[in-house]
Amino acid sequence: MSDARLQVPRGTRDFYPEDLRRREWLFGHFRAAARRFGFEEVDAPVLEHEELFTRKAGEEILEQLYHFELHGRRLALRPEMTPSIARMVMARSGSLRFPLRWFTVTQNWRYERMTRGRKREHYQWNMDIWGETSVTAEAELIAAVFDLLDALGLAHRDVKIRISSRALLEETLRNTILADRPEAFPGLCVAIDKHEKIGEDAVRDLLTDSDGPVGLGEDDARFVISWLGLRKVEDAARHVPPDSRAFADLQRLFNLLDTYGLADRVVFDASIVRGLAYYTGIVFEAFDADRKLRALCGGGRYDRLIESLGGSAIPAVGFGFGDVVIGELLSDKKLLPEPPRQLDAVVFPFGDDERAAAIRVANALRRERQWSIELVLGTPRLRRVLADAHRAGARFLYVLGPDELSRGEMLIRDLDSGEQTTEPIPN
Amino acid sequence: MSDARLQVPRGTRDFYPEDLRRREWLFGHFRAAARRFGFEEVDAPVLEHEELFTRKAGEEILEQLYHFELHGRRLALRPEMTPSIARMVMARSGSLRFPLRWFTVTQNWRYERMTRGRKREHYQWNMDIWGETSVTAEAELIAAVFDLLDALGLAHRDVKIRISSRALLEETLRNTILADRPEAFPGLCVAIDKHEKIGEDAVRDLLTDSDGPVGLGEDDARFVISWLGLRKVEDAARHVPPDSRAFADLQRLFNLLDTYGLADRVVFDASIVRGLAYYTGIVFEAFDADRKLRALCGGGRYDRLIESLGGSAIPAVGFGFGDVVIGELLSDKKLLPEPPRQLDAVVFPFGDDERAAAIRVANALRRERQWSIELVLGTPRLRRVLADAHRAGARFLYVLGPDELSRGEMLIRDLDSGEQTTEPIPN
Repeated sequence: MSDARLQVPRGTRDFYPEDLRRREWLFGHFRAAARRFGFEEVDAPVLEHEELFTRKAGEEILEQLYHFELHGRRLALRPEMTPSIARMVMARSGSLRFPLRWFTVTQNWRYERMTRGRKREHYQWNMDIWGETSVTAEAELIAAVFDLLDALGLAHRDVKIRISSRALLEETLRNTILADRPEAFPGLCVAIDKHEKIGEDAVRDLLTDSDGPVGLGEDDARFVISWLGLRKVEDAARHVPPDSRAFADLQRLFNLLDTYGLADRVVFDASIVRGLAYYTGIVFEAFDADRKLRALCGGGRYDRLIESLGGSAIPAVGFGFGDVVIGELLSDKKLLPEPPRQLDAVVFPFGDDERAAAIRVANALRRERQWSIELVLGTPRLRRVLADAHRAGARFLYVLGPDELSRGEMLIRDLDSGEQTTEPIPN
Repeated sequence: MSDARLQVPRGTRDFYPEDLRRREWLFGHFRAAARRFGFEEVDAPVLEHEELFTRKAGEEILEQLYHFELHGRRLALRPEMTPSIARMVMARSGSLRFPLRWFTVTQNWRYERMTRGRKREHYQWNMDIWGETSVTAEAELIAAVFDLLDALGLAHRDVKIRISSRALLEETLRNTILADRPEAFPGLCVAIDKHEKIGEDAVRDLLTDSDGPVGLGEDDARFVISWLGLRKVEDAARHVPPDSRAFADLQRLFNLLDTYGLADRVVFDASIVRGLAYYTGIVFEAFDADRKLRALCGGGRYDRLIESLGGSAIPAVGFGFGDVVIGELLSDKKLLPEPPRQLDAVVFPFGDDERAAAIRVANALRRERQWSIELVLGTPRLRRVLADAHRAGARFLYVLGPDELSRGEMLIRDLDSGEQTTEPIPN
């Protein structure tokens, strides 16, 4: 025997009954919010060909891939859901009716150092809209996030969504800094997204590294970093042409969110860039108001992902919302419930002579009332059975003793009130 | 671009919305049956330390392990759930109240050739009872399997559970063939379990291989193989002492199952052995009556698994019920439903001028009625919207056109009856 056998791999979790009930409470809210917005659930294997994830932009998520070779194939546990969904959309793009509204609640894997709100596996609620170019899609998704947060019991002020636009930055750089190398833009975004984690100096080094994917001059790097400090849409728009599509989209999105009644819950914040290379337009992240935790969710538009996989362009926008950070926030706010076990009755035969009758009682309650019934399997003492039934939260205890049986009856004890009645034993 | 990116790894599955709905229909029945029997759901990581699964008995399941090394650790995707659950029970054996009734609905992985009813990943419903020595536990589990089958709509005659006892065989061999090597018994079971797959001659070769784990003489091997042909409990019991515990257990189990009303749905069948080394007592498998398919489920008692992991003995019995074979059977019997999408209404603004009103309508229906609402995001024609809404199975279409809006109204079309009404637009 070794210790390793007895422990989950570091950064992973067991779910005991009480943990599972809490998880299903959260997942139930994910699914209910998705349903209110007319989304359909899909799923894909947790294991994919490694190639599905291979991109060349220095993304942290891919450096942390759980990947391996088996029987001559390079495989990987998915670090995120979007590439798998893109694969599914692509495989049936001829027969699916767009726009699609798809969601998933799945487990993703990243091999990384663990900090608060981060594990090596986590569950993620993904919502994606495929086939819609207008920011009406972004607005629906952001509204769905708030719909969930409201359903979880969080107050309006507890979470803000910070919104920016890669397209606005791209338009700005297209005719200036990146005029001769537009292909460097995704790598530039991946680099500047790290600013909170590694600091501005390190980001400047990444941007100016002549062997790196960006290779900017010092002044250009300084301009790009200064962009991150902008907090007004108008300031960010100063460098783009007046007919900028990205600016119009951003303005329209804020107007739509106003109509949804979300004006005071969303802000523009140019420091939101997102660490994935494939985003192309609006990007957003949700944070607790105190900024004590990591992002609760992040998403954005990725209109060229399917093209990068070799398909024809299908516009898309989506977000991922993890289970870990929201758990921390709900716990901090004392909003994490402890859902009780649902058990209708415990059926207790005193001994082997009463077992056949107890089985008939359990059968009848299960079939006719669809009740959740724990049939006592051994021959413990009544005192122990009563204590366990209370502890399990059962509503009733059915007792079949020799006296009851001789009268063809069972004793039914209401475990809340302590009231006792008798009924005939069913055949 | 390469093809591999665009396909799931061989033997794995995507779940499009209609597939997912069918899967959730089945999982819903798994969970409902477990709930009726008072079981609690648990879960564990799909990735475990490889050591958790390492046993030396020639088990096919371990030869098919998805395993790999990452950052100096040997890891494996679980091929079955029981070792993970055993690990969880062991970790809290001091604080848990026994008997435990735990179930899981999880994905397992096996790298193997694919045949009908077998994939490289499959979902499995596991039900286990920990801490109960008596066959009342086996009886509950077998009753739960039939409870599920009934709920799925299968007829009484469609499925039989075939029951045997490793303990009966072990008692028979303990004083004779394996008198000097009791430790060879698990390997012997693993070998004879292969008889249907590889044939009796190949099994005899395995049993008599002097370098193998069993190393029987020819006559002994012939006796063991002949055992597999027994179909009466009494015949199987001829070689054990009259006070045999295993025989008494088997008889009691059949008596209990009779009380559950299952007498005509269970049979004794000594050819049921199960391919896992850790079973110690009663074993059983469920088959379609025509025996056209692989086993629907299999299980048994494994009282020494926790000991083999280094813990103190905790008796246990459980089964695994896969999603693939039951899907084949339900499909053959035309019992596999196509659950429709649940969509309450589509809300359609004619153009951008009506969008704000449409958002208010969607907001109100989502919040006040908890309805599932698809808000049309682009500006398609009414004809297309109507066709899509019918296709999606929506109950109502809410239309916000310029005429309606000028009157402060929305048009509500009942998509079943075609009836149309108007209502004021909510604020």
